[in-house]
Amino acid sequence: MARVVVDVMLKPEILDPQGQAVANALPRLGVTDVSSVRIGRRIEIEFDGEPDLDRAREIADKLLANPVIEDYQVRVVAAAEVA
Amino acid sequence: MARVVVDVMLKPEILDPQGQAVANALPRLGVTDVSSVRIGRRIEIEFDGEPDLDRAREIADKLLANPVIEDYQVRVVAAAEVA
Repeated sequence: MARVVVDVMLKPEILDPQGQAVANALPRLGVTDVSSVRIGRRIEIEFDGEPDLDRAREIADKLLANPVIEDYQVRVVAAAEVA
Repeated sequence: MARVVVDVMLKPEILDPQGQAVANALPRLGVTDVSSVRIGRRIEIEFDGEPDLDRAREIADKLLANPVIEDYQVRVVAAAEVA
């Protein structure tokens, strides 16, 4: 079973209010050594046969990421890494 | 700079309508060899000093994941892997 993971994150220059909200909540947990939190999406695509990175990139481009504000990375993962 | 990534995914037995919607759209792109798409969250936590996995696990437990329906994995990443 072949799995491709697409990680979609906001571009560094785009504000991430959701991540900021988590970062702001950390001192209440006693965590003071975190400088930033960014929240993005992780998409797991399971291929019937061989994992196809070019296909996955096309899917990411057209369906998963907004290229105006987001960057994405595509990679094949071993089954063990899948959450 | 030390970065910890938390991957939060719905548990396998929980339906993922968002991923299903993407999977249903794939044939329109000419993609027919994908058996499933699951969409989760990827959170990048940047620590000032050393990455602290136990701290990150605590943050994930309390702020990032809903343990009733989600699983998470915590890992330190090299700068190169950061999207």
